[in-house]
Formats: sequence, structure tokens, C-alpha cells
Amino acid sequence: MYDIIIIGGGAAGLSAAIYAGRSGMKTLVMEGTSYGGQMNYTYEVDNYPGVNDNPSGAELSERMKKHAEKFDIEFTTETAKNILGINDRIKTVETRKNNYHTKCIIFATGASPRKLGVEGEDRFYGVGVSYCAACDGAFFKGQDVAVVGGGNTAFEDALYLARFAKSVTLIHRRDKFRAAATLVEKAKENNKISFVLDSEVSKIEGDTTVSNIQTTNKKTGKKTDIPVSGVFVAVGIIPKSEFAGKYVELDENGFIKTNNKMETNITAMYAAGDVRNTPLRQIVTSAADGAVAATSAINYING
Amino acid sequence: MYDIIIIGGGAAGLSAAIYAGRSGMKTLVMEGTSYGGQMNYTYEVDNYPGVNDNPSGAELSERMKKHAEKFDIEFTTETAKNILGINDRIKTVETRKNNYHTKCIIFATGASPRKLGVEGEDRFYGVGVSYCAACDGAFFKGQDVAVVGGGNTAFEDALYLARFAKSVTLIHRRDKFRAAATLVEKAKENNKISFVLDSEVSKIEGDTTVSNIQTTNKKTGKKTDIPVSGVFVAVGIIPKSEFAGKYVELDENGFIKTNNKMETNITAMYAAGDVRNTPLRQIVTSAADGAVAATSAINYING
Repeated sequence: MYDIIIIGGGAAGLSAAIYAGRSGMKTLVMEGTSYGGQMNYTYEVDNYPGVNDNPSGAELSERMKKHAEKFDIEFTTETAKNILGINDRIKTVETRKNNYHTKCIIFATGASPRKLGVEGEDRFYGVGVSYCAACDGAFFKGQDVAVVGGGNTAFEDALYLARFAKSVTLIHRRDKFRAAATLVEKAKENNKISFVLDSEVSKIEGDTTVSNIQTTNKKTGKKTDIPVSGVFVAVGIIPKSEFAGKYVELDENGFIKTNNKMETNITAMYAAGDVRNTPLRQIVTSAADGAVAATSAINYING
Repeated sequence: MYDIIIIGGGAAGLSAAIYAGRSGMKTLVMEGTSYGGQMNYTYEVDNYPGVNDNPSGAELSERMKKHAEKFDIEFTTETAKNILGINDRIKTVETRKNNYHTKCIIFATGASPRKLGVEGEDRFYGVGVSYCAACDGAFFKGQDVAVVGGGNTAFEDALYLARFAKSVTLIHRRDKFRAAATLVEKAKENNKISFVLDSEVSKIEGDTTVSNIQTTNKKTGKKTDIPVSGVFVAVGIIPKSEFAGKYVELDENGFIKTNNKMETNITAMYAAGDVRNTPLRQIVTSAADGAVAATSAINYING
């Protein structure tokens, strides 16, 4: 019988585990693949406040896992398949092998960026290909970069990068944008930003890091090389909420709806980190969410 | 001319500075006393996720300050005295000596615990006296502790501590409680928790750490010694919002009202950390608030 079961072992899940474990809660963390989640794909973490030695994402993941291990927490690689009794005081999380009983559940299953699915994208992930301008943009000071996408995030990224990059090329598969008109105007007025429209990225090339992207015009079929050292892909983010969505309410984009205490619409079920509806998805915001979700669960159990 | 002026250099302010500085924003941090804010009074930080070497609060403050110094940020020890043009695109922050022009302002001025004002309280701060059970409770495993207060926080703290402390004595100056009835009931049912009512703490005693508190019954005048190694003071938290409150909306307890993007009711003015209305006040939640506030300011400036 557990007090709290945390589904997911990224920054949000591990932070929730630290807070739950320190509070004397009997806690189980379920993580099927690798601890740290999306952090693991980060080449260098430069913006987790107070951690100023620029660890790799994998290294910071390891530190968080070790931190959680200091407390009396259980970990399993089993995957939750079903939850029974979601409105009961004791809920049951079923895996293939076991049934785990618990008072509270925290969903911290994360999200993943939508990929372009082109040659070179995976190979150069972390060494030129990024899905987060706020995370990695600062590494491209004075360099030529590209942004792929036509929504608010793509334009925010382009304007963000234009402050310190040498040039920004925004590549979009159509000639109209979903982004807010004010953002589009600002970008058009910015002389560092140029546009390659009606075009898709057909491949990303380089030696050890990115040096070129090839685009294909969808109307003419013409291929164009754009020499850049960074490609920021901003074509959407996919919440890993398929499992949670069977039990708690999601928003129109599939993210778990929570209030500021990380409570979902079901009592004693919480969500934290990238899987929830949040205005910013960073390691520090996920960690804070985990602390809040665990504290809400602790107060529920105690009170 | 600045893009962002951050008022306050605790976890929220320094995190906002890291995010603003990395984004190429011309940023000024105003901190009159010492960087790190309340962190500085923390003997040992055990719950900032990923920082698993248990630094002192002063040490973690230093790491955050050094982290912010990696980016191109200005710091001043001047104190903001007045803000002009709060509804204009360019606002002016006046200090005694200078006028600083800026597009955005982030209030990160923090809060401080309400003190008992008794002998020994300051002397044993960090070595037995604590204002945060979630922060320091875990250090008192198997020990006798006291909680002072009669509101929700005092009862939540008592129930929290009862999970691992040997005993918890709740001391309250009246015999009625402001706390929710369910919390009071739970505490009364818990055989680790006992009550000393109609009583105030008159002094906190010990050698190098706390070993005793003396209470005085307000009706009888009788003095009682309670041998404890920890005293958790939960008699309120005072937001440092006097200055901000001249310009932005506060809630009924004096905390700055924000939405989940850390926006106040005034465009381009934000709040982050303990000074705002937030369900949890921890280093990691303040740091996350700072990241969100800076990102909102950056998006405002860029878009």
C-alpha cells in the first residue's frame, strides 16, 4: 500500500519523489525507460538556476535520481496499464505483473517535440538540431540559424534568436502563418529574419555538427541549400497523456488540465511537468510542478 | 535604457536574471542587501532537485549569483524608491541617485516569516528554530518538536512532522483554531500530537542547538518547560510588497496577484517568488516563477 505513486521519472516525477520521500510518504516511482526524460537529450544544461557547471542533461538527470534515492523511495521499471477505483480512497495501479494500491497518483509522463522526420534530424539532435530556443539559443551567438514552423512558438523563437544570432531563416511549409499578426509583423520588420516559404526541410547535413539544411519548395520542387549551424524545430509538442487521458480531463491540445496546486479534476490525482497545461516547459518549471504536486498530495493525505 | 529591471535578488530574481540575460535582454537586478534572500538563512538545502550535495543556503545563493553573472547582466545595490509611467511603454525606476528607464519590471522582493519575537528565536534560527516544516522537518526524524500557531499551516506542519518526528507539541495562544475543522480533527486523532493551549512561547533555550522551550499560560501565568530539539514557527508570512503595492494589485493578504504567466494587472509588470500569491513557497518554485516571469517579459518585448 503506497501513499503516492508517481508515473514518470523526469524532472517533474523525480522532484515530486524528493518532496514525497522527505515527507515520510511511502512512494513508488514508475519509469519504464530512462530517468530524466527529455533532459537526457539535452547536450548541455545552462539554465537550471544554481547549477552553474553546465552539466549534460544526462548528468543532471543522474543527480536528480541520486537525490531522490537519498530518501526512502521505491522505483520500478514496470508500466502502468490501468487504474481502478479512481474515485475511491484507495486506487489500484495495474501493471502486467502487479497491482499497486495507493492513496494518490501523480502523472508526470512528460511530452515530446513533434519531429520533422527528415534525414539528419536525429543524428544532429543536440549538436545543431534543437526543439527549444529558450534552452539552446544562447549557444548560437553570432551564428546563422533556422527556425522551422509557422505558429506562435516558431515566431517567438525567431524573434528570440534574432537578438543574438547573426541571421535567422524561418522556414514554413505554407505562405500563411497561424502565428499572431503582431508577431508576424515584428518578424517581418526585423532585418535579421528572412523567410523561406512554401518549403519543407528535406534534409539536415553536416560533419559532426549541422552546417547546412536543404529545403524543397512544395510548389516548384526546387531544392535550396541554407548554410546554418542551428535548426530550431517548432512544429508542435505532443503530450504523453494517452494513459492519463483515460481518467482525468485534458485540454483541447491533449495536455492534462490542472489548477495551480497541480490538482486534476479527480480528487487525489495530480499532474506535473510538461504533460500538463503550462505556459513554460523547462527543467526548473517541471521540478517546481513536482514539488507542488507532491505537497498537494501530502496535504491531502495528512488532512 | 533597460529591457528588464528585476527588483529583488533572491531565487526568483536571480532565476529571472539568468533567463533574461541568456536571451540577450539588457537587464538590471536591484538588490539592496544580500543575494539569495531567505535562502541565506537556510542552514542546509536538502530539497532543491538535482543539487544533492546539501549546500548551505548561502552557498546555493552564491551559485545562483555566479550563474547569473555568466550572462551580461548589471547589478546594483540601489533601492527602488518610485516608478513613473507605469502605463507607458517606457517606465522609469527612481532610486536616490539615478533614474533607470525600462520596458519591463519584475517584482521579486520576497517575503519573510512572521516571528514570535522571543528570546532565543534569532539565536537558534537554523539550528532548531525553523519557519518551514517542508524545508527542515526531515532533519528532525525521531526527535521531539513543537509547532507554534493555530492556522492551517500550523496544523499541516504538525501532521507533516508527526509522520517522522517522535512527538509534536502544538502551542497556540488561544484554545480555538483558525485551521480547517478536518485538519484539527486529524491532529487530535493523531497520538503523536499533543496540545498546549492558551499559551505563548516565552523563551527558546539550548546550548548550541535548541533543547527546550518555555511556554506561559496566558490565563494562569503558569510557566511550563517543553523539551524539544526543533521549534516550527507557523504564525504567518509577511510579503515584502509595500513598494509593489503602490503600482500593482495585491490580494487580501498583501501578496501580488498574478496569473500563471506571472503577469500582474499592469502590462509589462510581473511578479515572481514568495511575494506573489502562490500555493507553495520553496526555492525551486521561486526559481520557476522567475523563469516564467522573464519569459513573459521576453515575449512581450519581442512580440
